Amino acid sequence: NNYFKIAVLPGDGIGPEIINESIKILDVIAEAFQCKFHFDYGLIGAEAIFKTGNPLPEETLKICKESDAVLFGAIGDPVFDNNPEAKVRPEQGLLKLRKELGLFANIRPLKTYASLIDKSPLKREIIEGADIQIFRELVSGIYFGEKFTDPEGEYAYDVCKYSREDIIPIAHMAFQEAQKRKKKLTLIDKANVLDTSRLWRKTCQEIALEYPDVQLDYMFVDNAAMQLILNPKHFDVILTENMFGDIISDEASVIGGSIGLLPSASVGEKNALFEPIHGSYPQAKGKGIANPVASILSVAMMLDHLNLQAAADKLRQSVEHAIENKYVTIDLNTKQYYSTSEVGSFIADHI
Amino acid sequence: NNYFKIAVLPGDGIGPEIINESIKILDVIAEAFQCKFHFDYGLIGAEAIFKTGNPLPEETLKICKESDAVLFGAIGDPVFDNNPEAKVRPEQGLLKLRKELGLFANIRPLKTYASLIDKSPLKREIIEGADIQIFRELVSGIYFGEKFTDPEGEYAYDVCKYSREDIIPIAHMAFQEAQKRKKKLTLIDKANVLDTSRLWRKTCQEIALEYPDVQLDYMFVDNAAMQLILNPKHFDVILTENMFGDIISDEASVIGGSIGLLPSASVGEKNALFEPIHGSYPQAKGKGIANPVASILSVAMMLDHLNLQAAADKLRQSVEHAIENKYVTIDLNTKQYYSTSEVGSFIADHI
Ligand SMILES: CC(C)[C@H](C(=O)O)[C@@H](O)C(=O)O
Ligand SMILES: CC(C)[C@H](C(=O)O)[C@@H](O)C(=O)O
Repeated sequence: NNYFKIAVLPGDGIGPEIINESIKILDVIAEAFQCKFHFDYGLIGAEAIFKTGNPLPEETLKICKESDAVLFGAIGDPVFDNNPEAKVRPEQGLLKLRKELGLFANIRPLKTYASLIDKSPLKREIIEGADIQIFRELVSGIYFGEKFTDPEGEYAYDVCKYSREDIIPIAHMAFQEAQKRKKKLTLIDKANVLDTSRLWRKTCQEIALEYPDVQLDYMFVDNAAMQLILNPKHFDVILTENMFGDIISDEASVIGGSIGLLPSASVGEKNALFEPIHGSYPQAKGKGIANPVASILSVAMMLDHLNLQAAADKLRQSVEHAIENKYVTIDLNTKQYYSTSEVGSFIADHI
Repeated sequence: NNYFKIAVLPGDGIGPEIINESIKILDVIAEAFQCKFHFDYGLIGAEAIFKTGNPLPEETLKICKESDAVLFGAIGDPVFDNNPEAKVRPEQGLLKLRKELGLFANIRPLKTYASLIDKSPLKREIIEGADIQIFRELVSGIYFGEKFTDPEGEYAYDVCKYSREDIIPIAHMAFQEAQKRKKKLTLIDKANVLDTSRLWRKTCQEIALEYPDVQLDYMFVDNAAMQLILNPKHFDVILTENMFGDIISDEASVIGGSIGLLPSASVGEKNALFEPIHGSYPQAKGKGIANPVASILSVAMMLDHLNLQAAADKLRQSVEHAIENKYVTIDLNTKQYYSTSEVGSFIADHI
């Protein structure tokens, strides 16, 4: 198979700019590796609310369901953040999309680049050689449990719910990934307080019996938030629930020196979505300064997923070539820097 | 008033060792500042479970309720952590105590010590001058909402609930503290996803009207977990809910170089409890290597609370004197170090 249907959802803020670079890359890949990508564009987020009133229009969902992969930009707009009473919010579009496509596992690889190591707020000796893969459960927990605000506005609640079935598939994925790596899996939870965390611990304990070569250990989320900074090399594969994963993986992004470098894949039984881990960065919108690398490396994860391994490898090499040659955006080098589209073209040219 | 009833709960792991040093300090303070402390000891945590079956015996609760202040050591034991099916857990003792005493605000001051700045995993220029005060809501949210595990063990849930009344008192405390400092308050939440977070945002927006001199801003918890490491000097006073506060404040402890230095106060209408932010550190139990400073600085916060300001100031000076003279435990200097009790005595002698 060398024909792929890609749903493209640029979204809000800097989303469209970085997605442009990813498309540029895919056009070059198509030529170099003799394959064809068909792009279907869809609206999502604040952009979709402004145009249709709906953060995830039916048409967008349809395009995504029929795709071989979804390429996602970014979501979120300060207009909604500062209004606690807005009924419709951009983020609902992304959350609904994750749920409808059953994207239960969000995978975030973290590593350091030799030439960028001094950009990190952490000391070189702390982070050099750190290499972590985070598995965050993405379609359950407090994000998707019942929510309620009483009409008088006196109280509100959010329910965090997990069943064994929500945990088992992602746990297997994480164990299998650990087998391919240093064979160490850390489950992050708050089992000294939460019933759901104890269910995670118990379920993972059982699954661990099927992976006797993997060492499973447990860490409370408060301690993990500390250990990730004190000693990131302690970690190999991390497995955690939705809310803790949101916090821990953004925190862990500081290890690599820039959140502008970090890709993610969200995968389910049938569909998969690829997006940078950074947000919509509204202050930078339209300025041509956004770092396209996180989105471009998300394309590399997409190529892995489509079994275009040679293309994925070549793309990663080209990104490293750009970074090692300091052909980067302003977030990585304030003295000598290039625009979003210059960096995208430089990477494309190297492929 | 110069007579104070202090409830002393050493708890688990290194708790008893560090509490011994705090008592040593209080004995010296009593003499130097002409006051009297009466100590009532109580069982709590794993220690209490082993001896009475109950992590918070009635007698302990009674001592605490009748006290002017509670001095708390540490809680937690690996025997329970590794058993997801244990019905009775040490942490329940502390949680119940917080609830019964109505200790709604957990206050954690964070600062850096000039002589220890190079101990931090973060670079000097990132942390030098950072000074943050965290207010964590302590008796509501997902810690205390309804919890359920179905008897078959197929699913579980935890409810995060907040009412305006839970938020208002701690919000006022945080605004008032900000007024005394740099007049900047950051509310950390996940208002783009959670109803409870939107209630926090709305309630704080209203209260902000009473503090026009304080600048209130909002930050999503995932972004905050990143910004705390990228730019800790951005923060002055932080206000947040229970679970986020647990994670964020442990994470923020890396700024100062050692979690062994950080005290906390948990205050309510009638009672107050003082404890180090570190855990029971079971691996170090009985070895005389634990750092007593966090517990001793918790005593300083207790002296503030009892309006013994001169004593509190003198105690803080004595701690700084010990640190500047490198009279510290092994966690702060692996080349030349002193035992838990040597450090306690050195500080006591300086008072
Ligand atoms: C935009 C927001 C709803 C989302 C989340 O919290 O999952 C984002 O922070 C992420 O991590 O992808
Ligand atoms: C021991 C545990 C229940 C407790 C908490 O989560 O509140 C601790 O981590 C703390 O922060 O005081």
